[in-house]
Amino acid sequence: MAAPPEAPEAEAAAMRHAIALAARGLGRTSPNPVVGCVVLDAAGHPVGEGWHQRAGGPHAEIHALTRAGERARGGTAVVTLEPCNHTGRTGPCAQALIAAGIRRVRYAVPDPDPAARGGAATLRAAGITAEPGPYAEEAAAGNAAWLTSVRLGRPHVHWKYAATLDGRIAAADGSSRWITSAEARADVHRLRAEADAVLVGSGTARADDPHLAVRGVPGARQPLRVVLDTEGTALTPGARVLDDAAPTLVAVAEDRPATAAGAARTLRLPRAAGGRGLAVPALLTALHERGIRSVLLEGGPTLAGAFAAAGALDRVTGYLAPALLGAGPAALGDAGITTIAQALRLRITAADRIGPDLRITAVPVTAPMPATAAKES
Amino acid sequence: MAAPPEAPEAEAAAMRHAIALAARGLGRTSPNPVVGCVVLDAAGHPVGEGWHQRAGGPHAEIHALTRAGERARGGTAVVTLEPCNHTGRTGPCAQALIAAGIRRVRYAVPDPDPAARGGAATLRAAGITAEPGPYAEEAAAGNAAWLTSVRLGRPHVHWKYAATLDGRIAAADGSSRWITSAEARADVHRLRAEADAVLVGSGTARADDPHLAVRGVPGARQPLRVVLDTEGTALTPGARVLDDAAPTLVAVAEDRPATAAGAARTLRLPRAAGGRGLAVPALLTALHERGIRSVLLEGGPTLAGAFAAAGALDRVTGYLAPALLGAGPAALGDAGITTIAQALRLRITAADRIGPDLRITAVPVTAPMPATAAKES
Ligand SMILES: NC(=O)c1ccc[n+]([C@@H]2O[C@H](COP(=O)([O-])OP(=O)(O)OC[C@H]3O[C@@H](n4cnc5c(N)ncnc54)[C@H](OP(=O)(O)O)[C@@H]3O)[C@@H](O)[C@H]2O)c1
Ligand SMILES: NC(=O)c1ccc[n+]([C@@H]2O[C@H](COP(=O)([O-])OP(=O)(O)OC[C@H]3O[C@@H](n4cnc5c(N)ncnc54)[C@H](OP(=O)(O)O)[C@@H]3O)[C@@H](O)[C@H]2O)c1
Repeated sequence: MAAPPEAPEAEAAAMRHAIALAARGLGRTSPNPVVGCVVLDAAGHPVGEGWHQRAGGPHAEIHALTRAGERARGGTAVVTLEPCNHTGRTGPCAQALIAAGIRRVRYAVPDPDPAARGGAATLRAAGITAEPGPYAEEAAAGNAAWLTSVRLGRPHVHWKYAATLDGRIAAADGSSRWITSAEARADVHRLRAEADAVLVGSGTARADDPHLAVRGVPGARQPLRVVLDTEGTALTPGARVLDDAAPTLVAVAEDRPATAAGAARTLRLPRAAGGRGLAVPALLTALHERGIRSVLLEGGPTLAGAFAAAGALDRVTGYLAPALLGAGPAALGDAGITTIAQALRLRITAADRIGPDLRITAVPVTAPMPATAAKES
Repeated sequence: MAAPPEAPEAEAAAMRHAIALAARGLGRTSPNPVVGCVVLDAAGHPVGEGWHQRAGGPHAEIHALTRAGERARGGTAVVTLEPCNHTGRTGPCAQALIAAGIRRVRYAVPDPDPAARGGAATLRAAGITAEPGPYAEEAAAGNAAWLTSVRLGRPHVHWKYAATLDGRIAAADGSSRWITSAEARADVHRLRAEADAVLVGSGTARADDPHLAVRGVPGARQPLRVVLDTEGTALTPGARVLDDAAPTLVAVAEDRPATAAGAARTLRLPRAAGGRGLAVPALLTALHERGIRSVLLEGGPTLAGAFAAAGALDRVTGYLAPALLGAGPAALGDAGITTIAQALRLRITAADRIGPDLRITAVPVTAPMPATAAKES
């Protein structure tokens, strides 16, 4: 990322660092955003930094101001998100910046949250220069899950799949261990650690008895494991997803009795209006109400197709193994698309080698659907 | 590519350049290899370069020696392939190097062709130091088509496909214009220009009425267009592939009458022993006999599956468009693979952005099949 011309170099460098700091909070701050902050002294030297480490803990600005101490006076705060204005579990950051004697604030992205908004105005009223940017796009990408959830009232959905070059997720006989490499499978645990919840359908639960908890990521918070099991019949009491490694929710149709997961871990949802299974918008709303801001959708193809049809895929990560099968189920099932003009078009944001495999990340080019407007699948 | 320690830097640099020079001949030298040559004077300075430009024309060494003139005396010839020993349409290069007073020869790859082999021995008998390497692997990759054809007695087969991220080559209704970008489609013309022949099955001929000639590549030689049409019924007299833009062959079963292509353009082949269509090994042998050293297999999925089953895919280039369809035919059809352990495993050699798309190139990790040992599809 090249420094935009209007940003003094010290502020641009500080913002790049603040964005990297913010990313350390991924998977730990929901329902809050990830935020990073660097404080520069009056001469433009970095004297304090911090990031929002967990919901309920101090905001990034407070960490950075504490480190900077008296050196913050007359200085600049560089922060990835507009400082908050509200008194939540911690005091408003705008007041803390004023009290510390900060003269100038650069915030990459304005706060879209109505409850927190107005920090910049408060700062300006106190005589502080408060300017948006630089690196708004990069900072927004780093906060994609939280921004999506604020804008749309539903969690950000990140669909992950592992397939061969010819797009198969299993061979003709259903065998799929292993299509991708150990390195790619380890990388999935990193994605899980960044998500508030991990989702699979009853088909995957039946076929794979998946565990869905994070392994091998030091300090990771375990995501909520969610199984979409309309009839409540996919899980037996010994299912691995029902162990204590992480919390679990089994979503069933409202007309079904309690499941093997027990009443406390059962979520009742309306059935999908048109198609099979549970209503995707109702699921997303229910998860949002429980503070879930980001979901890693781990499949399989049927469920991923339903999310695509509902306009509820916000990011796609495909692990492509250099292998060919020529038969077997495809990565994405029916999404209601019948002709090429209706294809769900994406933009590739990254393509990286992961061991022998290729990891492709892409985001839709069309606007995603809010929970309320999402089509029934 | 890092210079190997045993290679003096001037020779290593010359070999890298010679490999690039050789590549300029791709698609124009069959049935000969592509070859590049750089001549260094006694002090190690480059004084002449050349590449084999077309079959029947002078070899790379002759071009480079001509440019170097008297400055070649006492110098070193750096050449991507062992200099030839035989008197073909042009005199043997080994003799030309001796006559020019060359003292030392570096050749990246030994010549596997029995008719041409022995150049290094001839040079050594004349008191010249002749050493294999450096960059043997890179030089062999640049000559993959020719080396494959010499080793296996059949053309090198490069399969190209264009698919969505979920591996579809068309939507459910068969529409496929366009899955990939104009940039990716232009890139395919470059692949065609590098191939001696371009191949499709009757399914593609019927569905797309493809032209298969090279457009937009300055100076390109047109490849032979080949349609596999067992019953000889896929092409009508007005088919685009039958125009004058390039030569065409229509392969039909030996028991079928002449086709719309006319007798001169009809190739009769045995039917596949087990499966449908024509025998792939017989096709490859017939093409090899006509001097075809490299084939670009442009599909569709049925034919690609048959080539995969026959062990006759030597390189795969997939153009992946960032789009999802959720339905529609997959890039590769039945290849006789039923379980994951039988997957055709490849190694990714390159992954590049082509406009908005991703181009993935991969080669099999298992040894390819010679024409005679190839399984019937
Ligand atoms: N390679 C990969 O990345 C990957 C990832 C995951 C799975 N897999 C493979 O995929 C296969 C399973 O595929 P699958 O498609 O059957 O599994 P799935 O997508 O996990 O489950 C599909 C099932 O979920 C239930 N469901 C509930 N609500 C739904 C809704 N709104 N839309 C659609 N379905 C809903 C439906 O069954 P009910 O309504 O009866 O509950 C449906 O049949 C397994 O072989 C597994 O190994 C591969
Ligand atoms: N996106 C891409 O990269 C791409 C590339 C090409 C085509 N396509 C699409 O693919 C679709 C056509 O697919 P397709 O699979 O039907 O076409 P195809 O593979 O081009 O043709 C298959 C036909 O070739 C004949 N054939 C002859 N010898 C054969 C052998 N040994 N093995 C297998 N087949 C042999 C068979 O018919 P007979 O025996 O009756 O002759 C067979 O049905 C079209 O929609 C086209 O647009 C896409």
